[in-house]
Amino acid sequence: MNSSNNASLHEHHCDACRSDAAPITEFEAKELMTSIPLWGISNVTGVDQLVRTYTFKNFVEALKFTNRVGDIAEKENHHPEIRTEWGKVTVLWWTHKISGLHKNDFVMAAQTDQLFEN
Amino acid sequence: MNSSNNASLHEHHCDACRSDAAPITEFEAKELMTSIPLWGISNVTGVDQLVRTYTFKNFVEALKFTNRVGDIAEKENHHPEIRTEWGKVTVLWWTHKISGLHKNDFVMAAQTDQLFEN
Repeated sequence: MNSSNNASLHEHHCDACRSDAAPITEFEAKELMTSIPLWGISNVTGVDQLVRTYTFKNFVEALKFTNRVGDIAEKENHHPEIRTEWGKVTVLWWTHKISGLHKNDFVMAAQTDQLFEN
Repeated sequence: MNSSNNASLHEHHCDACRSDAAPITEFEAKELMTSIPLWGISNVTGVDQLVRTYTFKNFVEALKFTNRVGDIAEKENHHPEIRTEWGKVTVLWWTHKISGLHKNDFVMAAQTDQLFEN
């Protein structure tokens, strides 16, 4: 993947992912992370997950964002864990089928950033 | 608190909670837990939290439940963490002001069960 592709990562869509697909390599992950610099990689559950917390002025605004993330998840048929709290939403993207990170997760993280910014 | 009060826990409402309020005692917690037998107490973060996972047939149904929990949270002005995933919603209730469990949390857990059942 070259950097011009990375620059428009949020414009990509999810590819079908098979259970025997290889998780993304460390090199590819580092490259893709440059497009979503506010995300981290968490491994609390033993599975790599992209994670970012967004802040809001109250619970209602947080829940609105949760629903917007839900909309893109349904549209792309790829679903995150969304943790809604008073004034914040934490989104975790990973690919259940491969118990790890696929390019799809980076695409969805970039799309989530776009939602927040627009 | 007697058992007749416990039986209608979901009909209670949240009391105002001050930051110097005492967390619920272990004895009171055990008594209240009998009204919400499908909940557990988690302490992953060093703070006691009531936790229950509800299952659904897909992501959309899960997100609908998240919104219904959000509605009662706003109504009672007491807000949980709601973890929405494909086919499941995990709800965590605790009282930020006292970094632990207040009777309000048990009331809200009972109300959450009512939402799920109705």
